[in-house]
Amino acid sequence: MALIVQKFGGSSVGDADKIKHVAKRVIETQKAGNQVVVVVSAMGDTTDELMDLANQVTDNPSPRELDMLLTAGERISMALLALAINAAGAQSRSFTGSQAGIVTDSKHGNARIAEVTPDRIREALDEGDIAIVAGFQGFNRETRDITTLGRGGSDTTAVALAAALNADVCEIYSDVDGVYTADPRQIPAARKLDYIDVESMLELAAAGAKILHIRAVEFARRHNVDLRVRSTFSTDPGTRVISGNRGENMEESVVSGVATDKSQTKIIVVGIPDLPGKAAELFNIVAEAGANIDMIVQNTATGVDVDDKVSDISFTLPKGDSAKVVAALEANQAKIGYRELEVDHEIGKISVVGAGMRTHSGVSATLFNALAKAGINIEMISTSEIRISVVTDITEADDAARAIHTAFGLDSEIEAVVYAGTGR
Amino acid sequence: MALIVQKFGGSSVGDADKIKHVAKRVIETQKAGNQVVVVVSAMGDTTDELMDLANQVTDNPSPRELDMLLTAGERISMALLALAINAAGAQSRSFTGSQAGIVTDSKHGNARIAEVTPDRIREALDEGDIAIVAGFQGFNRETRDITTLGRGGSDTTAVALAAALNADVCEIYSDVDGVYTADPRQIPAARKLDYIDVESMLELAAAGAKILHIRAVEFARRHNVDLRVRSTFSTDPGTRVISGNRGENMEESVVSGVATDKSQTKIIVVGIPDLPGKAAELFNIVAEAGANIDMIVQNTATGVDVDDKVSDISFTLPKGDSAKVVAALEANQAKIGYRELEVDHEIGKISVVGAGMRTHSGVSATLFNALAKAGINIEMISTSEIRISVVTDITEADDAARAIHTAFGLDSEIEAVVYAGTGR
Repeated sequence: MALIVQKFGGSSVGDADKIKHVAKRVIETQKAGNQVVVVVSAMGDTTDELMDLANQVTDNPSPRELDMLLTAGERISMALLALAINAAGAQSRSFTGSQAGIVTDSKHGNARIAEVTPDRIREALDEGDIAIVAGFQGFNRETRDITTLGRGGSDTTAVALAAALNADVCEIYSDVDGVYTADPRQIPAARKLDYIDVESMLELAAAGAKILHIRAVEFARRHNVDLRVRSTFSTDPGTRVISGNRGENMEESVVSGVATDKSQTKIIVVGIPDLPGKAAELFNIVAEAGANIDMIVQNTATGVDVDDKVSDISFTLPKGDSAKVVAALEANQAKIGYRELEVDHEIGKISVVGAGMRTHSGVSATLFNALAKAGINIEMISTSEIRISVVTDITEADDAARAIHTAFGLDSEIEAVVYAGTGR
Repeated sequence: MALIVQKFGGSSVGDADKIKHVAKRVIETQKAGNQVVVVVSAMGDTTDELMDLANQVTDNPSPRELDMLLTAGERISMALLALAINAAGAQSRSFTGSQAGIVTDSKHGNARIAEVTPDRIREALDEGDIAIVAGFQGFNRETRDITTLGRGGSDTTAVALAAALNADVCEIYSDVDGVYTADPRQIPAARKLDYIDVESMLELAAAGAKILHIRAVEFARRHNVDLRVRSTFSTDPGTRVISGNRGENMEESVVSGVATDKSQTKIIVVGIPDLPGKAAELFNIVAEAGANIDMIVQNTATGVDVDDKVSDISFTLPKGDSAKVVAALEANQAKIGYRELEVDHEIGKISVVGAGMRTHSGVSATLFNALAKAGINIEMISTSEIRISVVTDITEADDAARAIHTAFGLDSEIEAVVYAGTGR
């Protein structure tokens, strides 16, 4: 008998009919001879609606109470799913994060899972029940307070439970039937992958692909969890994310996929004195402002005066972090000694990811040729061992992604199937 | 320093602005030098909305899961109230029923409080925090499951916490500024009572007055809790419910109030053989059908045949229970041997309550004279030590209540103030 963890996102449990549909699927999985643990997110837009209520009460919500509020969302969806399963003749019981033994640190709003003690889940499974678990939430043992894991945290709940229960497989359900070579909403010729190695999946998640939450993928890699991405609305086997040894006999593809991210801002710090320690000074200030930097590029140029060498440093960061970083940099202009700041919100980042890049040469050449042929200007370039990212003007990002997708031979002849709903 | 428990009902926390208003009141109570514990119900119609969702999923919800679902309501309101209090500069922390130590039996949907272990509440108070507690909910220690206390259960949570914490006073807030001699929405001449003895309050609650939940009043009497009924929207001191010794030096009024209940159905079982054990047989069947009987009246009459003595037995019960009781009685007609059933949904019950009835005579005479003068026909009569109830046609119930209210000299010259909202 296999133990299967299934995670259903907010769009999969968006209303009573969808909840009944999920109930049916879950019962079928159990009837096929499996023990089943189901992790659910809050219904549809519930989390946003609760957040709106909090914002009506205060601009600056206390983190402990905000977590108490938001965790009501999964409580509602998990109880409804358990009701639907019981009504359909199977047995199920729902458990909050705390009841399921999801122990976290005390960082409200973005807690990390420290330990999983799923005794009650095991009990329920042993008694033949389907266990329904609230995603996104846990509790801190010292303070005995409820915590949340941050956006997308339900994926992490599912993978962590799968690891703790030594589950045979962890299935992440959404309205797309697997991991694609690109976002099929944007590039209809995108091809579904049957397999992807976990490192490439990590890079894709980091590069802005919305299909899996990056912390969940990291967790799966670390604990060697067999992770699958499937659709709630089809029976397609989906995409298997191959971790650790499981990937040994799989031939690595050169390029697994293309991800596009339009949520970033580029800041160029123009005319920094080209002296040792200046970059460190700059990024200390950025870090103190509390921003997550993504790409960094430095060009050293000759200044107006021949002896006066200066650099330009460009970096990208989430749009939402840009205002506080600009304010911090402006406050320290004299100290750093730069000439001016240029801020560009209208950028797109396109990343090409593939574990095979380690051993195959010519990947960058293919990429740059494709963009040159399409007449697209590259503003920044950054690379990792298995990823190349370029920044373009936001209006050219989709064209760039399509050109790259084609150049690497990823196009499918069949158009991708995208189901109703908005994702996770 | 006094310890005050304040309970705010659903209409008092119905939206963000009302929650901010409650936050202000609570903070003022603390600033006046008190420790404050606040018990809240779910916002406005949240509980009904959650119930609707459950009904969309199944006609027959499993009780454990329904409790898990409904308890999300108070979680939302308590977190929002804590957010509002913290935003206004005071310190507060919210606690679920389980975190507040509300231990119950395992009867989902209508659990009884078995024990209260408010260690975390005491801790929070000792640290200078305002403690916010979810009403209506608790947990069962054996099964470690979440339970609910039934409709109106938040009043009981407040009184039970007040008893366990040895609070100086327990204030129940709604949109009416106290206990009135009748429902001021129905009888504008109703007068607010400064005091009422707990026995009369119990009888009024049992007779259909909506102001306090009967289990909360019982709890207050048993544990000698100083209970007050006040309005969220005024500073009126409200009505003090005098328990046990506290009432010793208070002169008992003959009549405290008049309550009207239009939610009942009358069933007349016509032509039951007048034999020993027949009433027991009848009410066993009614009890097995799961109905709560209120008034019972039996008349023995002479049958068609002079030797064939038969009885008519009339009883009242909640409208919602009548269908199942009628079905059970019809299925057992041959066994009981009655001739026919008459069912009347169009009745009103008017009750007059007063601890002084014990020592004052003439109360029934005043009552019956008042109704006779108003030309109102009485269908049933039933009495307790401190209560007289009569049943009339539903169309005459309001007139009957007004006539009785006037006859006992309860009318005020000032019209009662009723605030916006629908009660609790």
